[in-house]
Amino acid sequence: MSISRRNLLTAGAALAAAGKLVKHVDAAPSPPIGARGRVRVPNGSILESKLRGGVKIFHLRAQAIDHEIAPGLTIKAWGYNGATPGPLLEVDEGDRVRIYVTNELPEPTSIHWHGVFVPSGMDGVAGLSQPAIDPGRTFKYEFVFDRAGTFMYHPHVDEMTQIALGMMGMIVVHPKSGEARRVRDYALFTHEMTVPIGARRPDPLAMNDFNVLTFNGKSFPATEPLVAETGDLVRIRFANLGPMDHHPMHLHGHAFEVVATDGGSVPHSARIPETTVLVPTGTVRVIEFTARAPGDWALHCHMTHHAMNQMGHAAANLVGAEISGIDDKLARVVPGYMTMGASGMSEMDGMAQPVNSIAMMGAKGPHGTIDMGGMFTILKIRESLANDPGWYAAPNVASEASADDLHRDGIE
Amino acid sequence: MSISRRNLLTAGAALAAAGKLVKHVDAAPSPPIGARGRVRVPNGSILESKLRGGVKIFHLRAQAIDHEIAPGLTIKAWGYNGATPGPLLEVDEGDRVRIYVTNELPEPTSIHWHGVFVPSGMDGVAGLSQPAIDPGRTFKYEFVFDRAGTFMYHPHVDEMTQIALGMMGMIVVHPKSGEARRVRDYALFTHEMTVPIGARRPDPLAMNDFNVLTFNGKSFPATEPLVAETGDLVRIRFANLGPMDHHPMHLHGHAFEVVATDGGSVPHSARIPETTVLVPTGTVRVIEFTARAPGDWALHCHMTHHAMNQMGHAAANLVGAEISGIDDKLARVVPGYMTMGASGMSEMDGMAQPVNSIAMMGAKGPHGTIDMGGMFTILKIRESLANDPGWYAAPNVASEASADDLHRDGIE
Amino acid sequence: MSISRRNLLTAGAALAAAGKLVKHVDAAPSPPIGARGRVRVPNGSILESKLRGGVKIFHLRAQAIDHEIAPGLTIKAWGYNGATPGPLLEVDEGDRVRIYVTNELPEPTSIHWHGVFVPSGMDGVAGLSQPAIDPGRTFKYEFVFDRAGTFMYHPHVDEMTQIALGMMGMIVVHPKSGEARRVRDYALFTHEMTVPIGARRPDPLAMNDFNVLTFNGKSFPATEPLVAETGDLVRIRFANLGPMDHHPMHLHGHAFEVVATDGGSVPHSARIPETTVLVPTGTVRVIEFTARAPGDWALHCHMTHHAMNQMGHAAANLVGAEISGIDDKLARVVPGYMTMGASGMSEMDGMAQPVNSIAMMGAKGPHGTIDMGGMFTILKIRESLANDPGWYAAPNVASEASADDLHRDGIE
Repeated sequence: MSISRRNLLTAGAALAAAGKLVKHVDAAPSPPIGARGRVRVPNGSILESKLRGGVKIFHLRAQAIDHEIAPGLTIKAWGYNGATPGPLLEVDEGDRVRIYVTNELPEPTSIHWHGVFVPSGMDGVAGLSQPAIDPGRTFKYEFVFDRAGTFMYHPHVDEMTQIALGMMGMIVVHPKSGEARRVRDYALFTHEMTVPIGARRPDPLAMNDFNVLTFNGKSFPATEPLVAETGDLVRIRFANLGPMDHHPMHLHGHAFEVVATDGGSVPHSARIPETTVLVPTGTVRVIEFTARAPGDWALHCHMTHHAMNQMGHAAANLVGAEISGIDDKLARVVPGYMTMGASGMSEMDGMAQPVNSIAMMGAKGPHGTIDMGGMFTILKIRESLANDPGWYAAPNVASEASADDLHRDGIE
Repeated sequence: MSISRRNLLTAGAALAAAGKLVKHVDAAPSPPIGARGRVRVPNGSILESKLRGGVKIFHLRAQAIDHEIAPGLTIKAWGYNGATPGPLLEVDEGDRVRIYVTNELPEPTSIHWHGVFVPSGMDGVAGLSQPAIDPGRTFKYEFVFDRAGTFMYHPHVDEMTQIALGMMGMIVVHPKSGEARRVRDYALFTHEMTVPIGARRPDPLAMNDFNVLTFNGKSFPATEPLVAETGDLVRIRFANLGPMDHHPMHLHGHAFEVVATDGGSVPHSARIPETTVLVPTGTVRVIEFTARAPGDWALHCHMTHHAMNQMGHAAANLVGAEISGIDDKLARVVPGYMTMGASGMSEMDGMAQPVNSIAMMGAKGPHGTIDMGGMFTILKIRESLANDPGWYAAPNVASEASADDLHRDGIE
Repeated sequence: MSISRRNLLTAGAALAAAGKLVKHVDAAPSPPIGARGRVRVPNGSILESKLRGGVKIFHLRAQAIDHEIAPGLTIKAWGYNGATPGPLLEVDEGDRVRIYVTNELPEPTSIHWHGVFVPSGMDGVAGLSQPAIDPGRTFKYEFVFDRAGTFMYHPHVDEMTQIALGMMGMIVVHPKSGEARRVRDYALFTHEMTVPIGARRPDPLAMNDFNVLTFNGKSFPATEPLVAETGDLVRIRFANLGPMDHHPMHLHGHAFEVVATDGGSVPHSARIPETTVLVPTGTVRVIEFTARAPGDWALHCHMTHHAMNQMGHAAANLVGAEISGIDDKLARVVPGYMTMGASGMSEMDGMAQPVNSIAMMGAKGPHGTIDMGGMFTILKIRESLANDPGWYAAPNVASEASADDLHRDGIE
C-alpha cells in the first residue's frame, strides 16, 4: 500500500511541475467582477472592437499557437488572436458589425457564425456559401446581430482538424431590453483533445479516448474559479463544439434551469430543474440559478474520464496486482511509462511526471489532495466577496466518528 | 446454416451455465409488491436504518465484493454493504440523518450526495470539502433531507476507479405530502463495465467498448422483471453514473413522461411524451405512465451493443464467410476463442462458453430464444397479479401466413 | 504546401469516382414536391399498399442487398425491399393494416413496430412476443394504427447485426384531423456504420470509430437536397436507430422547435428553440420551422467526424510533419494507404482513391470545394421553386477585404 505517497505530492521529480500546479490552486485568485465586458470569461478574454461610422469593427486572426493547458503541459494548437478558444465576441442586439478574418494558418479556413441569422452569403461554409480564405488572406464579414443570445464561431473548412486543434469562440449578444436584475454572467467553452503522452500536437483523427479535457482551454487545477455572493443570480453559458462528446455538466449543491440555447430563450413553461445539464456538441446551454449557500462547490463534467487529466487510458488494469519493480523495467522500453495504481489511482499522486504532461488528477485543497482534473472547476460562494474568497472554512465538516458516536449509535 | 443450433441451447458444454440462466427466466418470479420499502428495487435492497433521538442512523460500508452479474459470471467489484449498486437509501422529506461510512477498501474514499442540498462541509469532495476517508476509518455525515426527490450517492475520490468498479447507490426522499395515488414505484440503476473475457476484474481504464451492461448490477436474463396491473400508475426512477455513456431507455408498448430529475419535479407544462428517455450519465430521470395493456413488454437500452452481453466486440467480421473448422484451430492459441457467426449472431446460442463468462445474448422465452442480454428487462402487465404472472399468453400472436392468406392478399 | 491540389479535384486517378460525385452535386436536382406520398423521403421511397376488405396490405421483404452509399462506394447491406433504410410506411390514423414480412436473409428475423401501441403478440420481440421468422418464411402482423405520429420499424432478433447492416424503416401515421396548413414534410433516417477501407461489408461488431455516416442511406455529396420556398412551414422527421450514437443535427440560418417524438406531440408549452437537436438512438425527433431566408443552408450532424466520409481514423497524426515520399513507400505494404495531410486535411481533395471507397470529404460547390461528407445535406430555400433551384446566388458573399477596407478600418 502506498497511501502515504499522497504526502509526497510536492516532493521528488514531480516537484517542478506539481509545485506550480499546487501554487496556482493555493492562490485561488479572486477575480474582479465585470472588469471589462459584462460577461466574465474565466481564463479567457473578450475581443476588442472599434466603431467606424456606426459599425463595430472586429479582427480575428486564425493562428497556430503555443497554448498552456496547465503548468507542465503546453501544446501546439490552432486558435484565434493567440488563444484557444478565441476571444469572446460581445455585442448588443441590433449591432451592425464588420468582422475581418485573417488566415495565418497553413491551410484554408472560414468562419461560420453558429446560431446567428446571417444572410446566406455570410454563413461561412467554404465552397457552399463563400470561397475558402486561403492562407495569408483577409476576408470581411458584414451583418447585423438581430437577436440576443449566446452563439459560437468556428471554421467550416476541414472542421475535423481545425476544431480539434482548438478553433472556436463564443458570441454573446446582449438584449436591447437589458437585464431584469444583476447577474453574475459566466462563459465556459468545453473542449476535448487527444494529446499522446509527451507529444505537443493534439491528434485531429481521435474519435474517442480523449485525454485532455478543458474549460476555456484549461484543465483543472489551472481552471480559474467562478465566484458569487449568496443570493446572487448566476448564469453560466456552456458552449460545446466537440468534436464528439455530449458533456453532462454537474453543479454541486444547487439545482438550476436551462434558460436559453443557441436557438433562443426557453419559455418559463418549458424549464425543468436539473443538477446536471447535458450539453450536446454543436449546442449552447445557458443555465441560471441562485447562489444558495456559501461553500466551494464543484462544477464538472460527469463522465468520469473527463474530470481527470492525461494518462491511464491505454495501460494494463493492475488493480489488485503486485506491481513493485514494474515501473523501472518498463521505463527502459516505454518512455514515460507509469504503472497504474494497484490499489486504485489515488496512490499515483506523487509519481514522477513524463516530460510535457500533467498529472492525471490531483491538486492541493484545504483538506488534502483534490483527486480531480480536466473539466473541473469550482464555484466559490461567500456571504460577501469583499475579501479574497480563499478556501471556504465550513462550520461543519464530515469527519471521523468518535468512539462515543459509534457506541451511542450502535455502529460496529 | 445452423439455425438448428438454437435447439441446442440447453445441451453440451454450455449446460451448466446456460441451464441456470434458463431456469431463472423460466421461473420469472412474481415479486411481492412493496414488501419492505415503498420503492421496489429489482435485484436490490433498501438500507436498514434505526432511530436515535429523532435522527435516522444509517451505516454504509465501502467494500470489495464478489458480485454475480448473471449465473456464470462473477466479478471482483467494489460496492457498499455487500452489493453493487449499494442498497437504496429511502427516507422522508425533512428527515434528519446521520450516515456512518466505513472504508473497508484499500484506498481512500468519500461519499458525495449527488443532488442533495447538503451544507458545503458535507458535500463529500475529498480534499475540497472534507479529508478523504482513509482505509479502516469511519466517517459520519449529518444533514437534513430538505426536499423530496431521487438522488444518488457515490465516492468523490478516484472516481474513475471507484465508480467503474461499482460504487454507487440511489436515494429516494418521499414527499411529506405523500402520493396522490397508488403507484408501482421502481428504481433501476444502470451501469457499464469492461470485463475482459475470462477475467474477474472490471477495467477502470475503459472509456468505451463496454461489454457488461447492467440494471441494478444484473444483466439479462438475470434481471428481475417489473410487474403492474392494467391501469396502474407506474413510476421508474432511472439513475446513471456512467462512467461514460448516456443511455437511451426504451419501453415497448407505451409512451411516458419524465416527471422528475435529480434537480426536482418537472412542471406539467414542460412534460413531453416519449417512448425512449435519454438518461445522461450523472443524472436521474423519473418516468411515469399508465400500464396500458397486458403483455410482457421489453424495457432496454436502445444502444444495440448495450442490450447484449460480453463478447463479440474485438472479433473479426465473418458475416458471409465460410468458417467451418476455424473455432478448433483458433482455440489452440486463443483461450476461449469463439468465431462470430457467419450468418449473424443468432446461431451462436448453443456454443460453448469460456470460463467465467455469460452468453452474448439468449434466454429461453415463451416463443423460443430471446436474443437479448445486458440492460434488458421485462415489464409484466396483467389484468390481475393475484397469480404468478409467468409468461403472457397473448390472444393473437404474429405467426406464419397461410397459403390462403397469401392467395387472398396477392402476396408472392 | 499543396493548396493548389484543390484545383485537381476532377483530374488524375480520382477522375472516375470524383467526377460522378461532382456531377451529382452539380446537378442538384429539384425534386417534385409531394410526388407520391405526402411525406418526402430524400433518396428513399414509400412502401406500396393495396386495400383488401378495408384493410391496408403491405409486404416487407427482409433482404441482403448491394447498396450504393455514394458513387464509388457500394456495400453489402441488409435491408427491406431492395433498400436501406427500407421504404417508409405511410398510413392514416385509424388504418387497419396487415403487414406481411418475408425473411429472405440467412438468419431469423422479426419486426418490432417501435412506438406503435400494438397488442403484445404483435410487438415483434422474437422469443418473447412471437417466434422468430425463420429464413424463407413469411409472417403476418395485423393491427390498427390508433394514433398519429412518427415511428420506426426494425428487427428484434440479433439487433446488433441486423440493425448495423441497415435493417430499419420509418413509419408516418397522418392525423385524422389533417394538417393545419401546408407543410414541406421530410423524413431523414440517420445511420452509422464501420466499413473498413476497401471492404464491402459493414462490421456489426463496431461500437465506435464509425466511418460511414448517412441520411437515408446516402453520404454527402450523394444526399438529395431538401427544398422550400421562403415562408414555408418545413418539417423534418429525424429517426435514429444507432447502433450507438446520439446525433446532434444542426441547421444553418434557422432556429426550430421539436414538435413531436415517437411518443407523441410535444405540447406548445414545452417547446424550446434550438439550432441543433440531439436525436438519441432509439428515438424520433420531429422539428418544424419557417423557411426564413433564401440560401443553401447546411444541415448536418455536428460531431465533426460524422460530417465526413471514410478514412482518416486510424492513421498517424502528421499535421506539421514532412511527409513527401511517404505515400509511395507505405503503399507498397499497406494497400490503399494514404498519408493524412501535413497541413490539415483540405489538401487531400485531389488524392487518388483506393478501390471501393469515397473521398473523406469534398464536393464541388458554387464557391469551390465543399469540405464535407457523411451526414451532411443542404436545405435549398428560394423565393420561388418554379425553376430548378441550382445553387443560390447570394447578393452579398463574404470576400477578400480590399486595401481600402483595411485602410479605412485600421486593420493591419
